Amino acid sequence: MSYEIFWISGSPYAWSVLLALELKGLEYTSHLLDRSRDEHKAPEFLAINPRGKVPVLTCGDTVISETPAILAYLEAKHPEPPLFGASPEETGHIWQLVSEIESYVRGPVADGVSGPIFRGQVKDGNGAANLKAAKGPAHDALQWVDENLTGTAYLAGSAITAADIILLPVMQALARAAGKEAAAHLDLAILPLDKTYPGIAAWLARMEALPGYGNTYPPHWRD
Amino acid sequence: MSYEIFWISGSPYAWSVLLALELKGLEYTSHLLDRSRDEHKAPEFLAINPRGKVPVLTCGDTVISETPAILAYLEAKHPEPPLFGASPEETGHIWQLVSEIESYVRGPVADGVSGPIFRGQVKDGNGAANLKAAKGPAHDALQWVDENLTGTAYLAGSAITAADIILLPVMQALARAAGKEAAAHLDLAILPLDKTYPGIAAWLARMEALPGYGNTYPPHWRD
Repeated sequence: MSYEIFWISGSPYAWSVLLALELKGLEYTSHLLDRSRDEHKAPEFLAINPRGKVPVLTCGDTVISETPAILAYLEAKHPEPPLFGASPEETGHIWQLVSEIESYVRGPVADGVSGPIFRGQVKDGNGAANLKAAKGPAHDALQWVDENLTGTAYLAGSAITAADIILLPVMQALARAAGKEAAAHLDLAILPLDKTYPGIAAWLARMEALPGYGNTYPPHWRD
Repeated sequence: MSYEIFWISGSPYAWSVLLALELKGLEYTSHLLDRSRDEHKAPEFLAINPRGKVPVLTCGDTVISETPAILAYLEAKHPEPPLFGASPEETGHIWQLVSEIESYVRGPVADGVSGPIFRGQVKDGNGAANLKAAKGPAHDALQWVDENLTGTAYLAGSAITAADIILLPVMQALARAAGKEAAAHLDLAILPLDKTYPGIAAWLARMEALPGYGNTYPPHWRD
C-alpha cells in the first residue's frame, strides 16, 4: 500500500507534511491540486476530505487530514527517524514547540505580515496601517523563535523534529513576502535575516540543505 | 517523582488535562490558581511558564505546557489506558478529531457563543447582533459533533480518547452558558440538548459518569 498526498503549492501545512515524508524516506504519489481551478473544492476531492482542505494523506482505505494528525500517524507507523523524540520528555517538549508555533508564531507572522503582503492588501492606507500594527507582535514572535534557535542546530536540539517542519513554511513565506517589491515601503526590518535574526537564518540554511528539501519546495515559487 | 498541575477553575484546556490524569489513574498535586488575583501572572508562576498560561504539568524538573503536548507526554509515559489509540490508523484518526475540534468547533462554539455569554457581552444591541451571527456556524459545528457521536459511545469509537477529553469542556461550557438567564432572550435553540443534539447529550451523560469526573469539575461552577 503506498502513500498518496493531496496538496496545493504554497500551502504551509502541506509543505510540512511533504517534509515529513521526505525525512522519513517514504515513497509517495503526489496529487498537486490547482487552487486557481478550485480543484480542492471539486467533488472528487470533497469525497476524500469534505472540508475541502489540504493536505490529505491516504494509504489504501486510510484517509487522514489535519497536519498534526498526519505527522502523528506517520510517526506511529515509521518511528525512525523520530520526529517526536525518543523519550516522553522529548515528545512532550516537541509537541509543546509545535503548539507554541501554532498558537504564538503563525498568527502574528503569517496572518499578520506574510498573508496580507501576498494578497496585495498593503497598498492602501488601511492595509498599510494594519501591517504597521502587526509588525510589533511579529517581531516578538520572531525574537522567541530566534532565541530558541541560538546555540542549537534545530528547535528541540541537535536533531530535526516535527517542530522544525511545522515552522519551516512559516519562515520561508515570511522571508519571501518581506522581499517582495510590494513590501519595500513597509519598513519591516526583517531582511536580511542573517543580520536581524541570525539564529533563524542559520537554521533556514540547514533546513534547505536537507536531503529531499527540493522535492517539497512550492512549484509556483520557482517561476 | 509526582505530578503537579497548575490550573484555573473553568479553563477548558486545564479541564482536559485533569481528565487525562484521572483517566490514566495518576496521582497529582493540584495547584489551583486564583484568576481574580492574577496568580497566573505572578512571578512564581511566570517562572514556570513565562507565557502565564495554564495548564502546566510538572514532574520533577520536567515542565510541559500546551494541552496537546501534556496529553502526548502522559500518553508516552503511561500508555495504558491509551488515549491516542492502539494502531497508527487509530492514532491518526484521534489526532485528526482533536485538530478538527480545535479548528472547527472551539471557535464557533466557545469564541462565538459561550464566551460572549459568560463575559456579559450579549446585553446590548451590538453584542446580541454578534451572537445572532455566530449562531449558524455554532449549530453547523454542533451538527458535525452530533453526527460523530451518533451510533457510537465516544468520538473515535467504543473507547474514550483524547478527542473526547478535548471536546468535553467546550460542550459543558456551552450547555452552562446557554442555560444562563442572560441567554434567555437569544433564542439559541441549543437546550434541551437531548432534544436538539441527542448524540451529544447521551455522550455528555457517559462522560459525567466516568470515574474521577467529579475531581475535574470546575470548583467555581459548584457555587
